[in-house]
Amino acid sequence: SVSPAPDEPTDHRPSDSIINLDHGDPTMYESYWKVVGQKYTSITIPGFQSLSYFANKKNMCWFLEPKLEEEIKRLHKIVGNAIVENRHIVVGTGSSQLILAALYALSDPLNEPNPISVVSAAPYYSVSPDQSSSNCCFHLEIYVYTKLKSEVNFAKIANFTVMGQTVSSAESYPETTDFLRSGLFKWSGDARCFNKEGPYIEMVTYPNNPDGVIREPVVNRADGKLIHDLAYYWPQYTAITSPADHDIILFTVSKCTGHAGSRIGWALVRNENIARKMVKFIEINTIGVSKEAQLRAANILETVSLSCQRHKPRDLENFFECSQRLMAERWKKLREVVDNTELFFVPKFPIQFCNFTRDFTETYPAFAWLKCKEGMDCEKLLEGHKILTRSGRRFGSGAEYVRISMLSRDEEFDLFLQRLLVVGDNNN
Amino acid sequence: SVSPAPDEPTDHRPSDSIINLDHGDPTMYESYWKVVGQKYTSITIPGFQSLSYFANKKNMCWFLEPKLEEEIKRLHKIVGNAIVENRHIVVGTGSSQLILAALYALSDPLNEPNPISVVSAAPYYSVSPDQSSSNCCFHLEIYVYTKLKSEVNFAKIANFTVMGQTVSSAESYPETTDFLRSGLFKWSGDARCFNKEGPYIEMVTYPNNPDGVIREPVVNRADGKLIHDLAYYWPQYTAITSPADHDIILFTVSKCTGHAGSRIGWALVRNENIARKMVKFIEINTIGVSKEAQLRAANILETVSLSCQRHKPRDLENFFECSQRLMAERWKKLREVVDNTELFFVPKFPIQFCNFTRDFTETYPAFAWLKCKEGMDCEKLLEGHKILTRSGRRFGSGAEYVRISMLSRDEEFDLFLQRLLVVGDNNN
Repeated sequence: SVSPAPDEPTDHRPSDSIINLDHGDPTMYESYWKVVGQKYTSITIPGFQSLSYFANKKNMCWFLEPKLEEEIKRLHKIVGNAIVENRHIVVGTGSSQLILAALYALSDPLNEPNPISVVSAAPYYSVSPDQSSSNCCFHLEIYVYTKLKSEVNFAKIANFTVMGQTVSSAESYPETTDFLRSGLFKWSGDARCFNKEGPYIEMVTYPNNPDGVIREPVVNRADGKLIHDLAYYWPQYTAITSPADHDIILFTVSKCTGHAGSRIGWALVRNENIARKMVKFIEINTIGVSKEAQLRAANILETVSLSCQRHKPRDLENFFECSQRLMAERWKKLREVVDNTELFFVPKFPIQFCNFTRDFTETYPAFAWLKCKEGMDCEKLLEGHKILTRSGRRFGSGAEYVRISMLSRDEEFDLFLQRLLVVGDNNN
Repeated sequence: SVSPAPDEPTDHRPSDSIINLDHGDPTMYESYWKVVGQKYTSITIPGFQSLSYFANKKNMCWFLEPKLEEEIKRLHKIVGNAIVENRHIVVGTGSSQLILAALYALSDPLNEPNPISVVSAAPYYSVSPDQSSSNCCFHLEIYVYTKLKSEVNFAKIANFTVMGQTVSSAESYPETTDFLRSGLFKWSGDARCFNKEGPYIEMVTYPNNPDGVIREPVVNRADGKLIHDLAYYWPQYTAITSPADHDIILFTVSKCTGHAGSRIGWALVRNENIARKMVKFIEINTIGVSKEAQLRAANILETVSLSCQRHKPRDLENFFECSQRLMAERWKKLREVVDNTELFFVPKFPIQFCNFTRDFTETYPAFAWLKCKEGMDCEKLLEGHKILTRSGRRFGSGAEYVRISMLSRDEEFDLFLQRLLVVGDNNN
């Protein structure tokens, strides 16, 4: 049941503990992989394997394991969420490295004297611990620089650490863009208020993190370049309506299968020179990508593909069906709790036909974009009940919003709902 | 024998093939790990393991696997090459990422309006495909910028690819420092001709890549910060004379055990705030480091430590004794060939007492710094015999020098020596 009596905790340890739904740690997926178990997904790597820097000297992306390339292509074809024909695949140490690689590849050849502007429509993917609530592009820029130049930010993190919580402050477009104060590109805030002349790069995400809305580019000028971050364009989160077909598309195993610890992402790149520059970036940044992680990711993707076959093994449940069911249940439970209060609101999403499941489906975002009554600070309110979330202010939106991870373990998610119900009752 | 008759090749395939000794791919170590085999070094990772971004929420370096931390400390204590007490360990995606992390951590808090100068004594670790032969700091700076802004460099790489050779262009201080045109730091060339006022960062490597010489900092001013790159400070390469004790020390499994494909390096950092900033960098850059690679590296280091025990298993040869013997043999063979010609020269190194082996030993660098007669272009000369090396020009030295990897597989190394003898005979 969603709402056990919160005054009668059956277990003292979890009911007292801090629930961290701030970062999107995809531990929800552990349950599927535990059931599938050693039979399909164990990988053994002998000590003499993969000593070389090289995985495939004949490939432009010389550090990409051929087996991973094969499994990426196979899965996209099965799911139908992206076109892989005539695309270059670039593997990265998670999609954060690929974002930087793409920014480098797009901005370096422009030969501009000033850094290229990087924009994204608010609310965008962000994390800076206490970013200004202003939506204004200029303020945000200044703020990011100031933060990087002061110790305030790091003192804050120390603070969190004392509380027993480490905050993953990455996963942020503004911070990722600006942390080295590159002369090639710089963060310029909300795409909707971007009006600077000249070339720019727009990050487009769909379904969008944090609010789950399907997004198109908003600036739409001839001198713009696009990077499509489709981390969540998988059947458990949203209807697959057509295969994505853009210049640069980013994916990551973290959000597809839940293996965030592997740090494996990939880009589908149309233009060969752009792909070559992205490879160059990863070469200089980390001299390639861990072979062990690639081999394991290949094995995991292979199992996912196998689970989608009509004549699959009986003991291997379809990964996307199972995950979609989990997401649907969690969203249903969350909506029940939210509807029980007059304090909270969550967005509604349209129902669409999914070409993969051959059925109509809602969108079930990996993050809930929860809204309080106007004037309330939702992050603070929930923090008072030991629920750590990420304030809407950090995404270029208001303090009445928070972003909540929907991908925690079952016991954490249920405890979160129990507490949310208490917060609602106390404030009704 | 070192010098089989080169006119009578016993195998047509290798004698015709290109030998790439340009990058330091440590495939020499495969033979040891094949013998040690599955018994000691196989690692199995089930599908449900390491899904989380986090490895240890209680550690400041929250993505560091506790087992890897333990094995790093144990090995340093056994070998005696670095002090680990009261040091923070930061794991990175290879030491290239840790170099950037350290540059970020040292330069960001200085709050300087202009980028901090980064220097290293020539010949330094470098790779830019056709760097100017000038030693002058200013020229080098301009060159790196120019290279990054033009397509020339990438056209070059395409060229190599057509030849069936992919060139790893990373592993370069100048390139690593400047590729994003950071506002925080920039490459300023040879430390010996550095005379700019104000703060600076000096990269110190020992034994030095490429020339194998033990190095001290050369600028030595109060406003300088040091990063010690001790990738080769292991018993197979040099005498361990005392445990290194510096502010920031970098190591990598690539050069220690040969597992370059894993992309695992670590830093020993004295100051907590510097360590925290390095962690921050890796968080933003790649949101941590692959768990699979860390777990495997931990397993490999554990085996190396076990092999050093007095009461070790009989079938597990001491890793460092075995590797040192291999290096000593290769250097002996190389010196025999070089002494047979009047064309080539290799440096001589002093004999020192090694505290680890409890014996006197020479230095056996991972790269040979080969010199031709004055006025000759050594890289071109060897390329004519299908031996790819890296010109001294790329390290801030002259065209009569090349850097040659000593860590290739046995058959490649022997073939290289055969051809070198032919080159010598033809030019005597």
